[in-house]
Amino acid sequence: MSTKFGGVIPPVVTPLTADHELDRASFKRSIDRMINAGVNGLFIMGSSGEVVFSTDKRREEIISAAIEFVDGRVPVLVGCIDTETNRVIEHAKVAQRLGAAAIVATAPFYALGGVAEIERHFRLIHEAVGLPLFAYDIPVCVHTKLPGDLLLKLGKDGILTGVKDSSNDDVSFRFLVDDNNKAGHPLTLLTGQEVVVDGAYMAGADGSVPGLANVEATGYTRMWKAFQEKDWETVRAEQNKLSAIMRIVTVPTGVQGYGAGVGAFKTAMALLGVFDTNQMPEPVLALKGENIRAIAEVLTSCGLTLARTPEEVEASTR
Amino acid sequence: MSTKFGGVIPPVVTPLTADHELDRASFKRSIDRMINAGVNGLFIMGSSGEVVFSTDKRREEIISAAIEFVDGRVPVLVGCIDTETNRVIEHAKVAQRLGAAAIVATAPFYALGGVAEIERHFRLIHEAVGLPLFAYDIPVCVHTKLPGDLLLKLGKDGILTGVKDSSNDDVSFRFLVDDNNKAGHPLTLLTGQEVVVDGAYMAGADGSVPGLANVEATGYTRMWKAFQEKDWETVRAEQNKLSAIMRIVTVPTGVQGYGAGVGAFKTAMALLGVFDTNQMPEPVLALKGENIRAIAEVLTSCGLTLARTPEEVEASTR
Amino acid sequence: MSTKFGGVIPPVVTPLTADHELDRASFKRSIDRMINAGVNGLFIMGSSGEVVFSTDKRREEIISAAIEFVDGRVPVLVGCIDTETNRVIEHAKVAQRLGAAAIVATAPFYALGGVAEIERHFRLIHEAVGLPLFAYDIPVCVHTKLPGDLLLKLGKDGILTGVKDSSNDDVSFRFLVDDNNKAGHPLTLLTGQEVVVDGAYMAGADGSVPGLANVEATGYTRMWKAFQEKDWETVRAEQNKLSAIMRIVTVPTGVQGYGAGVGAFKTAMALLGVFDTNQMPEPVLALKGENIRAIAEVLTSCGLTLARTPEEVEASTR
Amino acid sequence: MSTKFGGVIPPVVTPLTADHELDRASFKRSIDRMINAGVNGLFIMGSSGEVVFSTDKRREEIISAAIEFVDGRVPVLVGCIDTETNRVIEHAKVAQRLGAAAIVATAPFYALGGVAEIERHFRLIHEAVGLPLFAYDIPVCVHTKLPGDLLLKLGKDGILTGVKDSSNDDVSFRFLVDDNNKAGHPLTLLTGQEVVVDGAYMAGADGSVPGLANVEATGYTRMWKAFQEKDWETVRAEQNKLSAIMRIVTVPTGVQGYGAGVGAFKTAMALLGVFDTNQMPEPVLALKGENIRAIAEVLTSCGLTLARTPEEVEASTR
Repeated sequence: MSTKFGGVIPPVVTPLTADHELDRASFKRSIDRMINAGVNGLFIMGSSGEVVFSTDKRREEIISAAIEFVDGRVPVLVGCIDTETNRVIEHAKVAQRLGAAAIVATAPFYALGGVAEIERHFRLIHEAVGLPLFAYDIPVCVHTKLPGDLLLKLGKDGILTGVKDSSNDDVSFRFLVDDNNKAGHPLTLLTGQEVVVDGAYMAGADGSVPGLANVEATGYTRMWKAFQEKDWETVRAEQNKLSAIMRIVTVPTGVQGYGAGVGAFKTAMALLGVFDTNQMPEPVLALKGENIRAIAEVLTSCGLTLARTPEEVEASTR
Repeated sequence: MSTKFGGVIPPVVTPLTADHELDRASFKRSIDRMINAGVNGLFIMGSSGEVVFSTDKRREEIISAAIEFVDGRVPVLVGCIDTETNRVIEHAKVAQRLGAAAIVATAPFYALGGVAEIERHFRLIHEAVGLPLFAYDIPVCVHTKLPGDLLLKLGKDGILTGVKDSSNDDVSFRFLVDDNNKAGHPLTLLTGQEVVVDGAYMAGADGSVPGLANVEATGYTRMWKAFQEKDWETVRAEQNKLSAIMRIVTVPTGVQGYGAGVGAFKTAMALLGVFDTNQMPEPVLALKGENIRAIAEVLTSCGLTLARTPEEVEASTR
Repeated sequence: MSTKFGGVIPPVVTPLTADHELDRASFKRSIDRMINAGVNGLFIMGSSGEVVFSTDKRREEIISAAIEFVDGRVPVLVGCIDTETNRVIEHAKVAQRLGAAAIVATAPFYALGGVAEIERHFRLIHEAVGLPLFAYDIPVCVHTKLPGDLLLKLGKDGILTGVKDSSNDDVSFRFLVDDNNKAGHPLTLLTGQEVVVDGAYMAGADGSVPGLANVEATGYTRMWKAFQEKDWETVRAEQNKLSAIMRIVTVPTGVQGYGAGVGAFKTAMALLGVFDTNQMPEPVLALKGENIRAIAEVLTSCGLTLARTPEEVEASTR
Repeated sequence: MSTKFGGVIPPVVTPLTADHELDRASFKRSIDRMINAGVNGLFIMGSSGEVVFSTDKRREEIISAAIEFVDGRVPVLVGCIDTETNRVIEHAKVAQRLGAAAIVATAPFYALGGVAEIERHFRLIHEAVGLPLFAYDIPVCVHTKLPGDLLLKLGKDGILTGVKDSSNDDVSFRFLVDDNNKAGHPLTLLTGQEVVVDGAYMAGADGSVPGLANVEATGYTRMWKAFQEKDWETVRAEQNKLSAIMRIVTVPTGVQGYGAGVGAFKTAMALLGVFDTNQMPEPVLALKGENIRAIAEVLTSCGLTLARTPEEVEASTR
């Protein structure tokens, strides 16, 4: 497959120290671990990379550190997530200056609009910054589903390089894959799911952007390799193991959304010794007590070896 | 696989005459065609079987005809779709009297409620009617997503026999399949999708309920057989062909929802000579003109042979 | 004001015996009480009249009883709430046969459609049944907001007599009132709210359909009279008192939607001695214990005298 | 009424030059016009002040200009709208440095969370910046409805000074007003509606934040005065006139959301000679042709005198 940005491209989770600073040592450790597992690229400043929680200064700090740590080993895609066009373009210019291989932008959000505004939004970003541009389809956050025919049109016009699909609308994704193939494959189509990557590969996705790869990347790279070799039983077996690990996000109680999802990733990474803390960005609190223990149990039941106890992880954010 | 209601169980589309009567001849023709194609069961009175458009008398007429035409060759599941418990139970008793092998019910709708009411709803239906009971998860129609843990609990308690999942939430479906397997497979899990059945099979679904099988059933039965034999490249190839045919539902313009979706199925079946008309239930109008021609084009581009011209189909509802 | 169906037209709550039969004695008591309070009409088989919970037989029983008890003293509007056109028309014919003064229908629900289907739906109902027809705008139940321009068009064409607005979209309602006035007032516009009736009167509504009038009707009839006399300080004072009573629907905990809302009405009516029980239709459970006590407290703090203790009410459904 | 920030506080629309720079002359003209009309304060950087379209630099430029032009005549509230806590705090510190009298913040958006995160969000903003803090309840933009009991709790704890309610949920607003009165009026409650301000005043609102006041402020200040004097017929008459003018936002066709709403305000202000152009921020296009003419017609039919022709306004953005 000749797709430039294909394969496994994890959205990189950002580690914090107990006092909410960027934890550079943990960040390097995690990035090295994923690259060593054979990922094909890294997507920083995605939704799970706490882009919308970070000030502009913090965003720049994270991008710089990531690009330094990656050191050219894989392409770095940078999320430029903000409400409307001019704010996104500012982030895109920073990303370009710091060495991004590609940028990733959502539909405009907060203000209400229509398809015409979305189209103009992507065209203006492309015009302002020459880098490859991915559309990030994430209606659960921006409350707009990017229409497949618009995405394809922007692909054919050379505005969009690809799509990161986090819509959990597999029917639309399937139709987009088919249309993209018919049109000569102008778009690189990446699924943002963790537990139905096997289905996306069956449909013909060009790769995946699984947050869970921060916790366990080797399963995703093995699954990608098996897909390339049409070894579907291995694809299926790897997906099954990964889906079992993904249950870390469903076991926390008394917390919802980002605090449960990315909170579980960070907690698992702290338990595995990759991150020093499971600290979360304000106003979200780190997972505690029973929730940490439940995540530890999922990990050990999946055969992963913990480097630290739940109590040690809980103490890490104090 | 020992699942009693597994395999391909199409939701049967109901044919109408031009003057809105049940078209028994077309109905028999369609049922025979699907059974001859090797389907494992038939689901009548589903969303695409115009259950909510039909008066109680019409519902009874459709159920009786279907059970007569099927004549015991495959099990007949009957949708008992209505707003709240007592109305559903009335339909269930009719279905039982007429010979249904199983009944299918959604969450309550119209009045607002919570999970406690949904649970009690299914328990009361089960208590009133001894037949196997499927939960129909279709949030786009009833505006409630059935929680996976409730479904599993009702399965373990012997209340539910299975689930027809039309939620287009493949992540939740995947988790449900895994949990169901861990619990000893109390539930038969059927996907209601047409174009991502391959992914559902990878996840471990027990079967599929594809509306498109009314138009072309042999692809689905071949896909099911290939899945049983773990012949994934054939699964994929069949799904690709079926997804191409499914584009009949995306080509109509100026019409949305049921009129476009089931309207396209009926129009395709009329073009293929299975149905005599493409008539729709009030207040929905039959597809016309350019929309019929666009569907005809999809069918022929997929290698299907038309028995009638678009003009003949258009004339059929006059 | 010459509006035929104007003024206070409560949506009548339906009393049940402990074993879920229609409680005719309580029903008569409640209807007499509201008519004696000076209401201008009664709307039976509305959302809070448990229309969607009732079988066809039960619906007919309720309508017959209501029309018998009202005995021509005020017009009786009858809700004909069902999923699609032909089912609604069946209910409408029953209502007509039993003596309804007008019928009330929502947009189609369950199956997806567009504005064209909604328009045809109302036209077909009107064609089938000659009675005055009200559109019931209740997006929280049917998940479609009736567009103001469609309502006005149907009013001008003589299809619709009026609108019961339960959309909680006061901006749209305001615009509809203005447009209706400009067009010569073809529609009778009734607000379905309880606590912002004062604002609806300021906007120029022709009346109100407040569920709370089942609990306390005299406040609403005094407010209507004050509005007719442009005595706005009295309108305001009455609304304030009624809003305080309406807090009965916000105090229940551990229950939501219909069980909390209509459950609170029924519980209040049982505490006040109007209903014999606070029984709810399946699958909803009657309010109990602390929730009954909280409602009793709201009522007494508003100066209402209880006829029964919370314990007596709780015992009523056993 | 002793409420510090009560009365009419328009959300100030931001004028742009044809080439998307801040149009300082138009901005001064508009601010002077509203202050001369007797408004009680100004809210800059609200949703209609294009806060989410503006880069940080542009935001600072707008705030500085507004505070310079207002010159202490009325208090200036500054919207600090951004996705999550730390980004909002940065904006709040800028607003404080530039002389804001109060700041206005929404619930966090984009990332998913719960009530605990919303509460912590407002507490952290209050801790970081000593200024009076208003919660901005605008679910149509942030997709979270601020719960009334949380708002009241934060009011009683001295975290929130008030609420700008743009939820179009008048029932909840009514209950909040009542609860706030019972609690000793810790919160200043402002309605963000244009056409149901009369109802909000009846309910007991402390003031209004009507975008339409940018077009016509004197009606709103007269309505406020009449409300203070309990002259409800004048309140009603003024509201009727203003609602008629507000139809400028419903006449544009082929455009939706911000482009229609704020687009209509800017176009009306350009027609009235207050703004030099009707330019919109990227990616939104200025209204053109027929849409400008339709707005002009609404204005003249309401008795307003145009300073420029539709053609002149259309030429202004070229």
